[in-house]
Amino acid sequence: MKRQLIALSLIAAMPAVVSAADAGVAYPAGYRDWHHVKSMVIEQGHPLYDAFGGIHHLYANRKAMEGYRSGRFADGAVIVFDLLEAERSGNALTEGGRKVVGVMQKDARRFAATGGWGFEGFAAGDKGRPVVGDKAATACFACHEAQKASAYVFSALRDR
Amino acid sequence: MKRQLIALSLIAAMPAVVSAADAGVAYPAGYRDWHHVKSMVIEQGHPLYDAFGGIHHLYANRKAMEGYRSGRFADGAVIVFDLLEAERSGNALTEGGRKVVGVMQKDARRFAATGGWGFEGFAAGDKGRPVVGDKAATACFACHEAQKASAYVFSALRDR
Repeated sequence: MKRQLIALSLIAAMPAVVSAADAGVAYPAGYRDWHHVKSMVIEQGHPLYDAFGGIHHLYANRKAMEGYRSGRFADGAVIVFDLLEAERSGNALTEGGRKVVGVMQKDARRFAATGGWGFEGFAAGDKGRPVVGDKAATACFACHEAQKASAYVFSALRDR
Repeated sequence: MKRQLIALSLIAAMPAVVSAADAGVAYPAGYRDWHHVKSMVIEQGHPLYDAFGGIHHLYANRKAMEGYRSGRFADGAVIVFDLLEAERSGNALTEGGRKVVGVMQKDARRFAATGGWGFEGFAAGDKGRPVVGDKAATACFACHEAQKASAYVFSALRDR
């Protein structure tokens, strides 16, 4: 009886697990050890200040690095947009708290509707607080679509 | 005869190689793939602007990462201070050309006079243009000495 209950619980749990994996973009575990691509500061008055004000760093996994170099991003390529508060004091700008961890994950089939890229953002870098969900088309791809010539990616390597 | 000549050439070349390695701090090959520790912008009016104005990123090799965590840096630990121009335009600050690649390399014996750390800077990131040479005590350690309580290192991990 106990074994049957466990089996039933597993079966009941499985569809939810599979659909969560299929529907969304995973938190990019370990991205702080990935290659640091470049950084930028967006300040008050910039058109993207409300969304992306602060200092951001871009990180790329191995497949994304190959994509930057070749211009073609394979499935599994992940780019992280790590946005921190920028704190100004004494003619210096230092990093404050994490505002959001943005993610682009390539899967041509799953994310065909948004250029083959899945998009997600994790508020304050908390893997339990996704903020994009099913709004990727309007919240992310509406801007990234303009970058079609560079595989929908805004950033580029500055060190080769 | 040919073998003798090769042997002689090797012997003749060896002292120069050894003394170059002993005297200085090597260019940190591959540091752009190391862990990105943190970043900061130093602006006009900051007391370090003349020396370090711009946006800098700190990178650490594996031994340096262990050092940040434990507070004790083992021989072979290397920290890179990668300084780029900071270009302000349209309420954003982007990265420009490389000003200098600064290096701290731990070797308690070789660099005993400067807290066990060797210091070098490579102008514009050019491994052929070292700018510190034998001036590490005054050009670098004079400031780093104040950080004795944190192993002469100014930076610290912001992500653990």
